[in-house]
Amino acid sequence: MESKHEILNLFGENVRKFRRLLNLSQEELAHKADLHRTYIGMIERAEKNITLVNIEKIANALEVEIKDLLKHSDNGNND
Amino acid sequence: MESKHEILNLFGENVRKFRRLLNLSQEELAHKADLHRTYIGMIERAEKNITLVNIEKIANALEVEIKDLLKHSDNGNND
Repeated sequence: MESKHEILNLFGENVRKFRRLLNLSQEELAHKADLHRTYIGMIERAEKNITLVNIEKIANALEVEIKDLLKHSDNGNND
Repeated sequence: MESKHEILNLFGENVRKFRRLLNLSQEELAHKADLHRTYIGMIERAEKNITLVNIEKIANALEVEIKDLLKHSDNGNND
């Protein structure tokens, strides 16, 4: 499922990408971020409009900066 | 009023800073971002946990990138 809000799709794709880079399951990321596993799944599928406080929790758990979760990176076309 | 969530305080301060740089009232920014004036006030005072879709609306209205709204800039101590 994709959101009509491109920013939510982008954010969700990046969460999934960085989570896999760390070899974390959704459940492990959820535990690290103090969120629910189903919530992580919804965020990755862009089904939820995430709040800033939870954005920060996920960025911290993924050991990246928030701006890294908002970057386009599919084609290496920009930084 | 300050939030216990430092990220909300930071975001709110930056919204106010960039809004004033553009010489916009809260009402004018609200109109530009298609949000309510009272909502802009609550965001600037860190009274609300803003969602990603609204973060993007405000960044667009302020003609900055989202990451600019998440930067510490009080003492010119970092980029």
